[in-house]
Amino acid sequence: MKSRQTPPKIQPQVLDFKPYAAGLSIAEIQARYQLNRVIKLSSNENPLGLSPLVQRSIEKNAALGFRYPRPGSPDLSRALADFYAIPEDRFLVCNGSDEAIDLLMRVLVRPGKDQVLACDPCFSMYHLQAKLCGVAVRRVPVNPDFSLPWERLLAEVDARTGLVFITNPDNPSGFTASRDEILKFAEQLPASCFLVLDEAYIEFADNLDQISPLQNLLKLDLPNLIILRTFSKMYGLAGLRVGYGIMPPEIREYLLRVKSPFSVNILAEQAAIAALSDQDFQGATRETVQNGRTYLSRELTRLGCRVFPSQANFLMFQPPGSAPALFEGLLEQGLILRPLGSYGLDNFLRVSIGKMSENQALIKAMEQL
Amino acid sequence: MKSRQTPPKIQPQVLDFKPYAAGLSIAEIQARYQLNRVIKLSSNENPLGLSPLVQRSIEKNAALGFRYPRPGSPDLSRALADFYAIPEDRFLVCNGSDEAIDLLMRVLVRPGKDQVLACDPCFSMYHLQAKLCGVAVRRVPVNPDFSLPWERLLAEVDARTGLVFITNPDNPSGFTASRDEILKFAEQLPASCFLVLDEAYIEFADNLDQISPLQNLLKLDLPNLIILRTFSKMYGLAGLRVGYGIMPPEIREYLLRVKSPFSVNILAEQAAIAALSDQDFQGATRETVQNGRTYLSRELTRLGCRVFPSQANFLMFQPPGSAPALFEGLLEQGLILRPLGSYGLDNFLRVSIGKMSENQALIKAMEQL
Repeated sequence: MKSRQTPPKIQPQVLDFKPYAAGLSIAEIQARYQLNRVIKLSSNENPLGLSPLVQRSIEKNAALGFRYPRPGSPDLSRALADFYAIPEDRFLVCNGSDEAIDLLMRVLVRPGKDQVLACDPCFSMYHLQAKLCGVAVRRVPVNPDFSLPWERLLAEVDARTGLVFITNPDNPSGFTASRDEILKFAEQLPASCFLVLDEAYIEFADNLDQISPLQNLLKLDLPNLIILRTFSKMYGLAGLRVGYGIMPPEIREYLLRVKSPFSVNILAEQAAIAALSDQDFQGATRETVQNGRTYLSRELTRLGCRVFPSQANFLMFQPPGSAPALFEGLLEQGLILRPLGSYGLDNFLRVSIGKMSENQALIKAMEQL
Repeated sequence: MKSRQTPPKIQPQVLDFKPYAAGLSIAEIQARYQLNRVIKLSSNENPLGLSPLVQRSIEKNAALGFRYPRPGSPDLSRALADFYAIPEDRFLVCNGSDEAIDLLMRVLVRPGKDQVLACDPCFSMYHLQAKLCGVAVRRVPVNPDFSLPWERLLAEVDARTGLVFITNPDNPSGFTASRDEILKFAEQLPASCFLVLDEAYIEFADNLDQISPLQNLLKLDLPNLIILRTFSKMYGLAGLRVGYGIMPPEIREYLLRVKSPFSVNILAEQAAIAALSDQDFQGATRETVQNGRTYLSRELTRLGCRVFPSQANFLMFQPPGSAPALFEGLLEQGLILRPLGSYGLDNFLRVSIGKMSENQALIKAMEQL
């Protein structure tokens, strides 16, 4: 091979691509500040860790790890169908919701022709995957109180809009729209445009029935609704990578056709089935998060922070002083929060709800700073 | 939402997309023929299953499953760097080689402008991912003895060729090119074209040093060489989904920039590190495959089959009678082989090397048919 005379054929959108900004890891902070104990409240992981039933499933099935998984994750699709009483042919199991977002971009919009619509700020995978796919993104600022800008979103929808991404509860703000607002918005979209409703945090909400259209999905006539859910949060499987979409069967068939056949880990599929069945763990998680949310919201407010209402397992807040300085100060004490600079919110922080002892450690550290 | 008047904006290449044809699963065949014992020799999985060190790693780390993995799989990248004595910044760990193939297509060729080159037949993920990405594929028939058509491949390379895919040992034939042939081919490629050398099966070869350029990678001046390897075969982790690419650091940096940050399972990363360290298991696997390959090659030849030479953990053969009839006959007896119709080879079958008892069961069944 000759030395490089012609530059390689790098796709132009890759040249100025800014990668996803992940939360810091415990190991990184331990090493940087020589700390024994680090509390990670930055990635909205489950405060209770792994369900004991999941732990047992992984141990029991480990020996299966040498077999290829079955394309389409049929065991988990069936378990989800039973759990929700919704037909199996509406579930697409993916390697995290990230893979579902990527597949939607690759199948339901045409690069250079169509565009997708999202809020600003929003979960960055929406615009990162769109950029990678060469699909234009329009972004509409949320309202000043971080509620969703329904009218302004509708005003941006035109014949070329293929997907509209809404996160409910929203990330990073925690704002939660009602089911009625969502349905009213969906009804006003043109038939050629899909609403992608990302419900990653919905299981932490107080009144699920008034928030998600999933319960009544079969009765509602919503041919252009795609719901995304994940096992990473309530079900505690962030490291195992399992998410899923619920969508019209013909759309699922298109996505399944092009999906990488073995993208979902064989142990993760069985672990997710176990997680779905562990109602005790789900109940304990919900209680921990709801109590912790109430506690942290009250205490952060007491310390002079502006705390935004949240139905998720995290809170967004604006500290009275400098957010970056508070973030760094907490980091030095082994408390990892999430700075929101990558969301364009330099003056805000996001904190995942932890175990009560972790929440208390945060408040204590903030009192001292 | 109104009922659908406009068709959704499905990407045109999805409309006629034929999905990847996966091997049949044991559960499917047990159900179809009401069998207790089914022997799967269709997906080139490890004949010995999972290494005991891997099993222990999975059990030990299971409780970590609620944490997000670290982007870029730094622990495994470092372990690979140590294992091969090649700098860490050349390794890109992926959710199976499938993700690496997809990333190469999405970063190193421009849809509608560049094309990729592969053999016919070849591993179908190359042309499936190219199609999904809207990238044109040129395919060059292998020679009648299934050796690689170097001269005809070179004749198809032009200024628009971004990637050339070569599998060594080849799939499905098992043909294995020498290191010298590969290097000679690589040297003749233009500087703007990458050779993607997929070495999924290379660890089963007899004389690794004479086959793979990896041992001397740092001494060779090959700025346009990308090697793919996998933990699915020799290391027995097909269900855990770990593959990796070895590539120039600047190319790795481009791919890492756009790669889904959490695509590799947190337990799989640790399992792969354990697999790399288990030299006993690797030795036992190599011995089982090499002995089984010799046995099956001799016995299939004795039964009148044309058996193609292979350095992989599978053999391709042409039976004296109808291949589809033999495939169906074996299936009814609980032996799953791989028909090669999806490779355009209706008269051939592929058999993974199993444990000796499984290989013997196959020969016995074929004698009876």
